[in-house]
Amino acid sequence: MEVCKAVHAAEDMELVAAVDKDDSLELLAPAEVVVDFTHPDVVMGNLEWCVSRGIHAVVGTTGFDPGRLERVREMVARHPGTNVLIAPNFGIAAVLMMHFAQQAAKYFESVEIVELHHPQKADAPSGTARRTAELIAEARRKAGVGPSPDATTQEIDGARGADVEGIRVHAVRISALIAHQEVILGGGGETLTIRHDTMNRASFVPGALLGVRRIRDVPGLTYGLEALLDL
Amino acid sequence: MEVCKAVHAAEDMELVAAVDKDDSLELLAPAEVVVDFTHPDVVMGNLEWCVSRGIHAVVGTTGFDPGRLERVREMVARHPGTNVLIAPNFGIAAVLMMHFAQQAAKYFESVEIVELHHPQKADAPSGTARRTAELIAEARRKAGVGPSPDATTQEIDGARGADVEGIRVHAVRISALIAHQEVILGGGGETLTIRHDTMNRASFVPGALLGVRRIRDVPGLTYGLEALLDL
Amino acid sequence: MEVCKAVHAAEDMELVAAVDKDDSLELLAPAEVVVDFTHPDVVMGNLEWCVSRGIHAVVGTTGFDPGRLERVREMVARHPGTNVLIAPNFGIAAVLMMHFAQQAAKYFESVEIVELHHPQKADAPSGTARRTAELIAEARRKAGVGPSPDATTQEIDGARGADVEGIRVHAVRISALIAHQEVILGGGGETLTIRHDTMNRASFVPGALLGVRRIRDVPGLTYGLEALLDL
Amino acid sequence: MEVCKAVHAAEDMELVAAVDKDDSLELLAPAEVVVDFTHPDVVMGNLEWCVSRGIHAVVGTTGFDPGRLERVREMVARHPGTNVLIAPNFGIAAVLMMHFAQQAAKYFESVEIVELHHPQKADAPSGTARRTAELIAEARRKAGVGPSPDATTQEIDGARGADVEGIRVHAVRISALIAHQEVILGGGGETLTIRHDTMNRASFVPGALLGVRRIRDVPGLTYGLEALLDL
Repeated sequence: MEVCKAVHAAEDMELVAAVDKDDSLELLAPAEVVVDFTHPDVVMGNLEWCVSRGIHAVVGTTGFDPGRLERVREMVARHPGTNVLIAPNFGIAAVLMMHFAQQAAKYFESVEIVELHHPQKADAPSGTARRTAELIAEARRKAGVGPSPDATTQEIDGARGADVEGIRVHAVRISALIAHQEVILGGGGETLTIRHDTMNRASFVPGALLGVRRIRDVPGLTYGLEALLDL
Repeated sequence: MEVCKAVHAAEDMELVAAVDKDDSLELLAPAEVVVDFTHPDVVMGNLEWCVSRGIHAVVGTTGFDPGRLERVREMVARHPGTNVLIAPNFGIAAVLMMHFAQQAAKYFESVEIVELHHPQKADAPSGTARRTAELIAEARRKAGVGPSPDATTQEIDGARGADVEGIRVHAVRISALIAHQEVILGGGGETLTIRHDTMNRASFVPGALLGVRRIRDVPGLTYGLEALLDL
Repeated sequence: MEVCKAVHAAEDMELVAAVDKDDSLELLAPAEVVVDFTHPDVVMGNLEWCVSRGIHAVVGTTGFDPGRLERVREMVARHPGTNVLIAPNFGIAAVLMMHFAQQAAKYFESVEIVELHHPQKADAPSGTARRTAELIAEARRKAGVGPSPDATTQEIDGARGADVEGIRVHAVRISALIAHQEVILGGGGETLTIRHDTMNRASFVPGALLGVRRIRDVPGLTYGLEALLDL
Repeated sequence: MEVCKAVHAAEDMELVAAVDKDDSLELLAPAEVVVDFTHPDVVMGNLEWCVSRGIHAVVGTTGFDPGRLERVREMVARHPGTNVLIAPNFGIAAVLMMHFAQQAAKYFESVEIVELHHPQKADAPSGTARRTAELIAEARRKAGVGPSPDATTQEIDGARGADVEGIRVHAVRISALIAHQEVILGGGGETLTIRHDTMNRASFVPGALLGVRRIRDVPGLTYGLEALLDL
């Protein structure tokens, strides 16, 4: 796995064990930090195992709804000094894009999202695009910014994209693309565009390593990689 | 008007008259070429007046459906040597974008269109985007290229854009923008993007001047500026 | 002037006077805030006049080097409660672009700047691009990030751009463009692109109004519009 | 090799043999077409071997200067009915980008090239960018279009890029990028941007297959993939 290779290559880390689905977790017992990119069906058990042994966890597995997050919060509360990072996206560029979009959202009259992916993708828009729209919508609500202006009266169905909490989101599917997203903000004669391009599938590795390096210093449960970036 | 200023400034042309809606067309009698950016209600009368006097016409007025084009074709057939250019778009960059998109269309598995305009625009997608989609669809049909691949099974309504003859078209509305369009083609590990940006409202002037310079050499009725470009 | 029109249009402000170079400053005496977009030759006198009368100033005039800034700092120190904002760039999108680029700089192995302007521009790269490069270079230095990797051994002179404190900056000059800049950061399989487009020359207005609205709340001398944004 | 896999997968082709550097060329004797992506040191011998046996060749090997092209032209002249395609670039998107840039070149006052690659690249600008600049320069010369306007008087060395036959070319090197190029043309209030992105190293495959399918129909020596596209 890509993270294992990278840990192995890093001078300040040591790879204790790489555990596949049929291996015993006991191999991980000597570890200080466990990285979990597994499956929603097993991740809660893995976390219980780690936290109860005082091993920090960096988790990229999907499926953490508010209920699951609450359960993890209780777990780490019972074991002070053991920390867990759960992040829906470990791509640093993707995380920064979302963060900057959220910060800029209230300064511009208009904002829309265009996400572009390979045509094998099943959902449209992407989870990242929906999350970005929610963050932008929340920032604008808090600042009292109204909806983006839109005088459309004649529309061919779907032309103006999906409406995610009042933010228009467009999903483009093109062969040869991987995962890309553009947030376009405009007003007062200027536009600001924040774009993220994933060029290969190993793009979550630097973020996972950052998690491993920093997890000791962030007590309890941390949700989202942005909390570990100095922003 | 911008075209008048430009004709005045051009060394190889002379401005005979600038006629507004309450002026007599007779002022135009000495002209060799008349440029008509008027209104669908009056343009057919204007053309009749010009063609019957042997004056060439360069027309940017909208509203030419197949019926009107046929009537103009008959007009010029009755006056051999008098030529008419009617173009739905006089922006050279816009016309080239459409032409190149059409040429490239059959070489890529996927193609989609993203058009971006100011939020005062009433129609979505733009006429230019619809026309581009039609040209692309026609080119792919002729070459026997099937639909762009798309595995979307979960969609928030509108995320995948409008369907114009099988081509997905997305319309973005952002304050501070003017008129922009991007055609994205992809396949075989590569993408090709052809983008057009209108930066101000005088962008039709160079195309109109090109029409004035070339109209003498293209007998009869010519539809579309691309016919005057050496492509 | 654009700012005057905008102040006039704003519901929460009143235009006291618009003073041109031959007018007396006394017209401004009733104002609470003066906006100064004048000339380096007169701006220091204007500031002295305002500050000594307890009038806040929002200044977009160029030419503030460290010496001049120090003199303004002394001025406002002698008149507590009177505030001055001096900003080299009042475009909010431009200011956010610089700020985000600076924040993101240490997370990516590579970073370069491409600025694009109309071909009448005399300096290359633009002041904004040079300033962005300095901010990025400083952020990377502080974080201990080394130079962007570059294996170039054969170069046609200038191909790799200008070197501004170790950051490569490319200046593109294209007719029809206005003022645009792109900061491209990359590493770990991802890129992040932050782009700013000025679509017309009034793009400094919203930033100037923001300055007028906020100047009362930021004591003393403030340099740079970013200090007034909640970032 | 990627081309072998693709030939194998194609329904209208059969893979006769895949020959590595230590294998005998005799394995290729039953082939109708040979694809040569080898090395400048051996390609001329390979071609002599193929052409003398009446086997068509599709060649992506580099190093064909005018002298070598002349020798190949003589080879095929001695064996009528045997055809050779030599192409410096087999990426269809890249080839179309160059072709469209060349076609558009004379319609815009300004044109510049920005190429972007991974930082391991040794030459700046890329061969593709240099070739594009030459094609653009030639098209403008033929049409009597003067140099792009440029009022730069203060330049930090290199900011305005390399000068390739009067066309400015900028080379950006960013980690995570692969091979990308943008040709920006502008004038009359509009810009046209033609961009090519290589997303993986197999992007030459569709072009190579196109060559294999069409080589029978283009007599003699053909230089450049564009000759096989219907443009």
